[in-house]
Amino acid sequence: MKNKKTVNSAKDAVERLLNNKRKNTGGSAKKADMGQKNAAKPARAAKKPKPAQSFTKKKAGKKTEPQKMHIIPLGGLGEIGKNITLYEYAGEMIIIDCGMTFPDEETPGVDNIIPDFTYILENKDRIRGMFVTHGHEDHIGAIPYLLKEFNLPIYSTRLTSALIDSKLKEHRLSDKAKLVVKKPGDTVTIGKFKVEFIHVNHSIPDAVGFAITCGAGTVIHTGDYKIDTTPIDGEVIDLARFAELGKAGVLALASDSTNVERPGYTATEKVVGESFSNLFRAAHGQRIIVATFSSNIHRIQQIITEAAKCKRKVAVSGRSMINVVNIAAELGYLTIPKGVLIDIEDIKNYSPDKLVIVTTGSQGEPLSALHRIAFSEHRQVELIPGDMIIISATPIPGNEKLVDKVINELIRRGANVVYEKMYDVHVSGHACREELKIMHSIIKPKFFIPLHGEEKHLKKHADLARSMGMNKNNILIASNGSVIELTQSSVKITDTVQAGRVLVDGLGVGDVGSVVLRDRIRLAEDGILVITLSVDAFTREIVSGPDIVSRGFVFVKESETLMQGLVDVVENTAYQCFKTNPRDFGAAKAKCKEAASKYLYQKTHRSPIILPVIMEV
Amino acid sequence: MKNKKTVNSAKDAVERLLNNKRKNTGGSAKKADMGQKNAAKPARAAKKPKPAQSFTKKKAGKKTEPQKMHIIPLGGLGEIGKNITLYEYAGEMIIIDCGMTFPDEETPGVDNIIPDFTYILENKDRIRGMFVTHGHEDHIGAIPYLLKEFNLPIYSTRLTSALIDSKLKEHRLSDKAKLVVKKPGDTVTIGKFKVEFIHVNHSIPDAVGFAITCGAGTVIHTGDYKIDTTPIDGEVIDLARFAELGKAGVLALASDSTNVERPGYTATEKVVGESFSNLFRAAHGQRIIVATFSSNIHRIQQIITEAAKCKRKVAVSGRSMINVVNIAAELGYLTIPKGVLIDIEDIKNYSPDKLVIVTTGSQGEPLSALHRIAFSEHRQVELIPGDMIIISATPIPGNEKLVDKVINELIRRGANVVYEKMYDVHVSGHACREELKIMHSIIKPKFFIPLHGEEKHLKKHADLARSMGMNKNNILIASNGSVIELTQSSVKITDTVQAGRVLVDGLGVGDVGSVVLRDRIRLAEDGILVITLSVDAFTREIVSGPDIVSRGFVFVKESETLMQGLVDVVENTAYQCFKTNPRDFGAAKAKCKEAASKYLYQKTHRSPIILPVIMEV
Repeated sequence: MKNKKTVNSAKDAVERLLNNKRKNTGGSAKKADMGQKNAAKPARAAKKPKPAQSFTKKKAGKKTEPQKMHIIPLGGLGEIGKNITLYEYAGEMIIIDCGMTFPDEETPGVDNIIPDFTYILENKDRIRGMFVTHGHEDHIGAIPYLLKEFNLPIYSTRLTSALIDSKLKEHRLSDKAKLVVKKPGDTVTIGKFKVEFIHVNHSIPDAVGFAITCGAGTVIHTGDYKIDTTPIDGEVIDLARFAELGKAGVLALASDSTNVERPGYTATEKVVGESFSNLFRAAHGQRIIVATFSSNIHRIQQIITEAAKCKRKVAVSGRSMINVVNIAAELGYLTIPKGVLIDIEDIKNYSPDKLVIVTTGSQGEPLSALHRIAFSEHRQVELIPGDMIIISATPIPGNEKLVDKVINELIRRGANVVYEKMYDVHVSGHACREELKIMHSIIKPKFFIPLHGEEKHLKKHADLARSMGMNKNNILIASNGSVIELTQSSVKITDTVQAGRVLVDGLGVGDVGSVVLRDRIRLAEDGILVITLSVDAFTREIVSGPDIVSRGFVFVKESETLMQGLVDVVENTAYQCFKTNPRDFGAAKAKCKEAASKYLYQKTHRSPIILPVIMEV
Repeated sequence: MKNKKTVNSAKDAVERLLNNKRKNTGGSAKKADMGQKNAAKPARAAKKPKPAQSFTKKKAGKKTEPQKMHIIPLGGLGEIGKNITLYEYAGEMIIIDCGMTFPDEETPGVDNIIPDFTYILENKDRIRGMFVTHGHEDHIGAIPYLLKEFNLPIYSTRLTSALIDSKLKEHRLSDKAKLVVKKPGDTVTIGKFKVEFIHVNHSIPDAVGFAITCGAGTVIHTGDYKIDTTPIDGEVIDLARFAELGKAGVLALASDSTNVERPGYTATEKVVGESFSNLFRAAHGQRIIVATFSSNIHRIQQIITEAAKCKRKVAVSGRSMINVVNIAAELGYLTIPKGVLIDIEDIKNYSPDKLVIVTTGSQGEPLSALHRIAFSEHRQVELIPGDMIIISATPIPGNEKLVDKVINELIRRGANVVYEKMYDVHVSGHACREELKIMHSIIKPKFFIPLHGEEKHLKKHADLARSMGMNKNNILIASNGSVIELTQSSVKITDTVQAGRVLVDGLGVGDVGSVVLRDRIRLAEDGILVITLSVDAFTREIVSGPDIVSRGFVFVKESETLMQGLVDVVENTAYQCFKTNPRDFGAAKAKCKEAASKYLYQKTHRSPIILPVIMEV
């Protein structure tokens, strides 16, 4: 019920906004008529439309100004995460975002995954700068790895900039980078590009989309966004500006597709505050622990606000949570009433009913604070039966079992766990179908390129645009590495450049490749068995071994018969090999491996990796 | 909207049923009055209630008849899957179900997971038989492994029995087992137990719950169930019988908890048929491929029915799908119009718009038919752009990314993929909260033991019972291995027996234990590095090596400098060790390992498993 109301009020507000806009034909929307006409016949190419922005207007007379631009997504297509897109015009380039993604069961042992920068490095002399939409890892996480390769100015809003800076400090790169702070409404002119910052709502403050204008026209790059008409900071997404640009004529929309599978509207962040309010008031005598994403500063604000209302102190746990709260408080993105925030070390001085603990670990991450609380490994927080634990997040696909494991352990130990399925303790930061439709309808782009999504999201987003009347030929689903050529009359893929993923494992960037990954997965499935033996350099007699060592195959002490059988098989095989061909070590190794493999499969129906080592002494 | 209607009609039907029952005080509910009285004061123990069933009635006069029974769940608590429960009374035992569960990322390389049978084998002389609720793997999958240990009669309905038999044939055990076929309404008297088969709805036909009666009273063991008032086979769950037993007085309810987190009612299977009908009609000129669980025979029936209506042929792909369709057709659980079913080899003789292919792979399993179709590895089915692919299932937790991978690949190759989020192409087989409440309300048990669920499900189910007025002391959340003592006046855990999981890997049952698993996970994370060297038996000089072989660590050819450094470190360490203490191989190995580990961490921030092998020649 609550959701419904929210949805309705969001709808109403959006409609009000749009109505106002429709009436407002003057003001800054100077190109309104032309834009309208353009939008009315989207399938036909205007031969040479007047560009919307003054930057290109000045040069509009020059016949030599090229009429085409290129968009080259190097990440974020066919995947969720690792967002990075190049815009190229008249030989100059800018980068939008530079994110990472997290490893999964197909990349065991990997710390994180960053884009392949080959094409960027090949063109670094042409790159004028980077623009960042917001401070999430999937949009800023790979910046340090790029900055290690070459330097460039990075333009972003204040909070985003602070989060990038904090990341660069970790990598000891903060001297190197040139971070330029801009605010929504600002426009940066850089080379042949003009980039305007436009405020959007998202699950982190200070998020923006960009209007990127060059001689070919204007492209709107939304970044991640939702439409929240009652956001915590009071700043509704700047639909007016998007509509204004739409009226002036937008060549292409490059838009977030993450939630295109979800019907309706994303609820406002405010409903979570209402849930907190109800839950906090119901938590008589109980300690409250809330796990959420450290970057969700509006969420943290709501926790602090409700805690203060209930006369509870707030303690923060988890490295990234402490870091972000510090940055956000310092920059004024968090309003913390005096005396409310206490150090986690001091919670022992307060009774449980006077405490709220905000922690990391909403994704069940094994090293996170919440996981440590659940499994009694947290230094300062010991679980008290009756603790109310609110998991204010939804599991990211792939994390479901990790999250369930933590929830089950907390419940087993007597906590009351509140998680999404039962209560409104989380809302998404991404636009659902009706919100996406609003953006399409006010921006009225000539061409559409869905970004940020797996194949299924891109396809559904393309279908959504078609369902709104867009011509099929004006919609382009691309892949990482596609060179998208955009002119006044067409959008098409004209080339492909190197793009992909680079795995980061410890200090190694890119040294874990497909062979190593394949071996890791096989090792996990079947284990490994090492067979060593030494032979005399002259007589070729076996002078030591075969010795067998294994890991992840069987517990050797309990499998003595099996192992003795294996020793016999290998010994006989090696003996026969060296008798036949004393010089051929390679053949002897191969034969021993084959014989061992056959014997083990027959006895166990398993196929461990077998490493034969024959030493000559 | 459709759902709402279904919910309402389900509600109505249930209420009608219950109203009829309330009116019907005669008939077979002979003990109705007594049962009612008992139920009216659930918190007070009737001193010696007349048992509800004739079996115990005969003996009701005997003062020596013990008043307590035991329920011992050996699987299915604190987990989804691996369901197995022992009932014990007066020294005799019966087993309900014997299921397996599937491995996850914490059990890499494991084929499946079965219950620990230690306690059963210790008590095998006291076990009178096994009763099976339905033919899903999590209820029958471990039967072959138990039968390898000892034989016992297995009672189940016809389809369940046929599925067990098919499984035993695979394990070459079918001669050994004594399978007894019963039908809903039948009662089996075995030792001191009387077990009544009661029809329930579920995502497989022929599912039953049991009323288990002994001298201590009647326990209702629901098995997996839902309330479907418009099931495909026309047989609605026998609420009347559950209500009758409830009136007669039920000592305890042991119930499925799987869907306790979901509000409302599970939609009827029939809505899926309606969706198929709409989709099939919309698939002009397209081939249709439907992936679902092979055991969901009602679903397969609906596919066949709709295909026949659209004059399409049906071909079946996937080993388990072919197996189940054959069994179900033979036993009459599937009605296949003549000429509709064709061999998968013959699809080439029909145009795409005349075909429906039913396949396995709805969970994205890498070896399944749908996965092979997606990745061009299927022998008979090559994807045609435009194919309509319906995934008629929800990902089981943990399988989300596997399923997405298949969907994305199918979309990338031009298929139209229909999956749950967008259409009603799947419904659950488990009761949601309102259905669970109906069962509680008609059975009116004195005690309640939630079964089949993780900690969170058991807790929520206990909360649900409390919200309906049950006394907290009458509800017991147990664990695998708990010995639950049930008397007229109490339910409590009095003991714990050995219970847990046994891993099956190839031919090995139980030889993969915690050490092997730990090694496998570590191998996947960090890889392995084997260092071999030979030393002279007398002089302790290094006569060969150190040689380094690694897997899953780095690609050695690209890391020559790192490896040469490692060889030097190990050589120096070994030399120093043998110089100091020529006899101590153990110390030398440990030192070499430590030095190698330190060197590698410093250079790479990684910690592969290091296996030093020093041979004496």
